[in-house]
Amino acid sequence: MLTYIFEKSKKTPLYIQLYEKMRDDILSGAIAGGDKLPSKRAFAEHLGISKVTVEAAYSLLISEGYVYSLEKRGYYAEKDVGLPENRGGGVPVSKEAESEKYSIDLSSNIVPPGQFPFTVWAKLMRNVCLDYRDELLLPMPYNGAKCLREAISGYLYEQRGMSVSPDRILIGSGSEYLYGVIVKLLGKDKVYAAEDPAYRRIHSSYAHSGVRCISVPVEKEGVDIKSPAVKKANVLHISPSHNFPTGIAASPKRRREITDALSRGEIEWIIEDDFDSELRFSGKPVPTLYSADRTGRVIYMNTFSKTIAPSIKISYLVIPETLAEKCRVEVSHAGCPVPSFEQYTLAEFISGGYFERHISRNRKYYRTLRDRLLEVYYSSALAEKSAIEEADAGLHFFINLKTDKSDEEIKSLLADEGVKSSFLSDYLSKPKKESAHRLLVNYSGLSPADFSQALTLLDRLIKQLTYTSKRCKINS
Amino acid sequence: MLTYIFEKSKKTPLYIQLYEKMRDDILSGAIAGGDKLPSKRAFAEHLGISKVTVEAAYSLLISEGYVYSLEKRGYYAEKDVGLPENRGGGVPVSKEAESEKYSIDLSSNIVPPGQFPFTVWAKLMRNVCLDYRDELLLPMPYNGAKCLREAISGYLYEQRGMSVSPDRILIGSGSEYLYGVIVKLLGKDKVYAAEDPAYRRIHSSYAHSGVRCISVPVEKEGVDIKSPAVKKANVLHISPSHNFPTGIAASPKRRREITDALSRGEIEWIIEDDFDSELRFSGKPVPTLYSADRTGRVIYMNTFSKTIAPSIKISYLVIPETLAEKCRVEVSHAGCPVPSFEQYTLAEFISGGYFERHISRNRKYYRTLRDRLLEVYYSSALAEKSAIEEADAGLHFFINLKTDKSDEEIKSLLADEGVKSSFLSDYLSKPKKESAHRLLVNYSGLSPADFSQALTLLDRLIKQLTYTSKRCKINS
Repeated sequence: MLTYIFEKSKKTPLYIQLYEKMRDDILSGAIAGGDKLPSKRAFAEHLGISKVTVEAAYSLLISEGYVYSLEKRGYYAEKDVGLPENRGGGVPVSKEAESEKYSIDLSSNIVPPGQFPFTVWAKLMRNVCLDYRDELLLPMPYNGAKCLREAISGYLYEQRGMSVSPDRILIGSGSEYLYGVIVKLLGKDKVYAAEDPAYRRIHSSYAHSGVRCISVPVEKEGVDIKSPAVKKANVLHISPSHNFPTGIAASPKRRREITDALSRGEIEWIIEDDFDSELRFSGKPVPTLYSADRTGRVIYMNTFSKTIAPSIKISYLVIPETLAEKCRVEVSHAGCPVPSFEQYTLAEFISGGYFERHISRNRKYYRTLRDRLLEVYYSSALAEKSAIEEADAGLHFFINLKTDKSDEEIKSLLADEGVKSSFLSDYLSKPKKESAHRLLVNYSGLSPADFSQALTLLDRLIKQLTYTSKRCKINS
Repeated sequence: MLTYIFEKSKKTPLYIQLYEKMRDDILSGAIAGGDKLPSKRAFAEHLGISKVTVEAAYSLLISEGYVYSLEKRGYYAEKDVGLPENRGGGVPVSKEAESEKYSIDLSSNIVPPGQFPFTVWAKLMRNVCLDYRDELLLPMPYNGAKCLREAISGYLYEQRGMSVSPDRILIGSGSEYLYGVIVKLLGKDKVYAAEDPAYRRIHSSYAHSGVRCISVPVEKEGVDIKSPAVKKANVLHISPSHNFPTGIAASPKRRREITDALSRGEIEWIIEDDFDSELRFSGKPVPTLYSADRTGRVIYMNTFSKTIAPSIKISYLVIPETLAEKCRVEVSHAGCPVPSFEQYTLAEFISGGYFERHISRNRKYYRTLRDRLLEVYYSSALAEKSAIEEADAGLHFFINLKTDKSDEEIKSLLADEGVKSSFLSDYLSKPKKESAHRLLVNYSGLSPADFSQALTLLDRLIKQLTYTSKRCKINS
C-alpha cells in the first residue's frame, strides 16, 4: 500500500499534507493514471491517521480532478494527468549495464537447460512444501539439515568410499563461504598455500579473508611436498583427485608422501578440495586423502555447483573430529546460511537416487558432446596447426596453438569477433613461457556449430598473425 | 554406486581385492541382504577396471554364497549373511543429541505452519522451474537477481516511502552475512556501537567479524546521540523504527538529532536495521533515516526472516551511492550466496502482490492471537501480581512479575517444569535492577491453552518462591 510520512511539526493540516503528496505522485507518474487507490478505511489504518483525514484528502483530489471514484468499486487516479515520461517516477530504475554479449563463449561452463533435472526438482520442491511443513519453519541447525547431512554421508560412502558421520558435515552456501569457515577454524596467523594453476578465486578468497596465500606449482604427479612453498605453509589447499584446469591427479606416491608428512607433523593441515571428482571419464576413482589420513588434520570440501548447477549454492565441509568443538564455537552463532527449502529438496534428490542417476546421465551426455567437439576439431583446418591436451579432465580441454603471439593478443582478437576465451595462463600466478598458447575450451554449454565457427575464426586469426608478424620482420 | 579403492602396490590380484572388499561389506551389513549390486559393465566402468575382473569377483562371491543372481535381473547380496546389528555399518550414524524438548516455549517466535503461504510458495516455485529455465542456470550477479532487487525497490517505495534504485540493493543470506559485508565496507579499524538491549547476536556477530562493538542504552525516546558510547563509536547500528525487545521507536526529535549529527559529521555511519518495521499494530509508519539522510552515510538493512520465515534466509542491504564502488570491489568476488530458485520465487512473491497480502493477513492473525492471549492473562490469577508491558511491539510482550527472585531462578524453575523462557535481562549487556522481572513472551507460535498453563505454573512458582523466601527469613 502507498506509504506517506507526515511531518507532525508542520502547521499544514494532515489532510492537506496527504492531498499534496498524492497530487505530486499523480503528477509525477509515481501513481499511474487508472491505478486503484487504497480504500479509505485500509489507508487510514495503514497510515495511522483517521478515516476522516483520508476522506478529506480524497474529496480535495476529486474536486481538483486528480482522482475519480466509481460506485462500489473505489477510487482511481485520473488518466492523462501525470507526465507520461515520468511513469513510475517514484521508483528509480536500474541503470546497470547489461552484461557484455558474446556470440560464442569458450570460457564459461554453463549448464545447458536440458542437463538440469527441472522436472524432478520441481516435483521434489512441491513434495518438500507438502511433507516438511513443520520442519521448514523450525530453526535450522547451524551445520545444516540433518537429513541432508545424512544423505551426503551416504553418498560419500557409496561414491568416494568415505566413512563420514553426518555430525562431521557442515553445509555452507558456496565455496567462498567455506573458505571463510576454514580461516575461522585454522586461524589468520597461518600461511595458506594453494595450487598453481588453480581457480584464481581460491587465492583471492583467502586473501579477502585476510590471510597470506602463496602458490604451490602443480607438477605432473601433483603437488610436491618437498617444494619450498609447502615448507613455508601451514595449510595446504589442494585438489589431489583433479586439479583445475590441468586435470592432474596426484600420483599414489605423492599422495602417500602427503599422508606421511601429515603423520610426521611436517604438514599442519590439508584442505582437500574434491570439487570435480564426479565428472571423471576414465581411470579408477582416486581415494581421498581424508580417508587415508590418520591424524585428523584433513578437511574435505565439495560442492554441488559442478554436479548440479552453480545457482544451487550448496557446498559442504567434512570437519575432522579434532576441529569439531572449534567449529561449533566459531560457526554456530551465525546459523546455517542455506534456505531450508533448498536443503530438504537436495536431501530428497540424493537419497531418492536421483543424484546418482543425474551424474551418470550427465557423464554420458558430456562424454558424447566432448567426442562430437573433438571430431569437429580434427576435421578442421586448425587441427594441423595445434594439438588437443587433457581431454579426459572434467568439462574442458586445451587446444595447444602453434603461434608466437601472446595469449592476451589472441584473446583480444577473438573478443573483437564476439568470441570469449581464456587460456591456461589465466589460471597461473606467473604465466610461464612453456605453458603459453593453451586455449581453454570449457565446453559444457558449447554447440558443435559454434565450436566449428570459433575454430575457423581461430585458424584465420593465427594465419593473419603469422602473416603480420612475418611482414613486420621484413619491414623491421 | 559402490566405490572401492584398490591398492596397486599390493600383490593380491584386483579381482581378489574386489571380492574381499565386497564380502566384508556384506558381512558387516554395509551392503544389506537383498540389495541389488551394480551390473558388471557399469561397475567395471565406474571402478576403472576391466569387466573380466568384476566377473571373476562376482563368481567367487556367488560360489561362496555371499551373492546370488537372478536371470535377466542381476546380482543381489545374500540375505541373512551380514550381522543384523551392523546393518548399514559402513556409514556412521549421527550421534547428535536431539534438541532439548520443552512442552511449552515462551522464548521463541516460531512461524505457525498455517501462517506460511505454502500453497502460493509451491505454485511460484513450480512456475519458476518452468519460466526461468535459462536464467536459473546462468551466473547470478553478485548483488542478487535483478528482478528481486526491482521487486524490493518497489516494495520499499510502497511500504516505507523510500526511493531506492535496484542497483543500490545487495541481496544476502541472513543478517549475519550482512554484518560481515558491513565490516568489509566500513573497515575493521572502526568502533561499532549497537543498541542495548538488542538481539545479542548483533553484538556477537560484530565481535566474530573482529571489530570492537560497544553498547548504547536505548532510552524512552530511542538512542541519545549525546551519550558517551555514541561519541566513542564510528558506526552506530540501530533500529529506530522498532528496538527489540523494548519496541521503542526513536522519537522525531531524536531522529532529527541523528540526521543533523550526520550532516555535521559527528556520526560517521549509521546502520539502520529495519527488521521488524512491518509488524506494526498501531501508530503511523515511522519514516526511515535512510530517506531523511542527505549525506549518503546511512546503510539500510532488512530481512524476510520475520515477515516470511527464518528458513528463507534472504536479507538485504541498501548501500548508499558513496559505498557503491567499494561494495563492488569487496563483495563481488564471492558471488551472491542465495540460491537462484529462492530469489526468483521471492521476486514473484513480492511483485505478484502476495507479500503485501501475506503481511496484512499475518498482522490480523497476530493481532487477534495477541488479544486472545491478553484475555487469557487478564482472567488468570497471575494478573493481580504482575503487569503487561509493550503489547504493541512486534510479536512479543512482557509480563512484569512482582517477585524478589532473580530472572535466572525463575527461568530455571520454569525449565524444570518443561517451560522455556527468556527475560528482558537476557538482551541487556549488563542487566540492571530496574529492568528485572520482565518475562518476555514471544507469542507467534503460542496457543492460548499452553499460555494459560504457563501462567498457572508461574503463579504457583511465584507463590512458592514468596513462601520459601519468607520461611527462609524466619529460619535465619
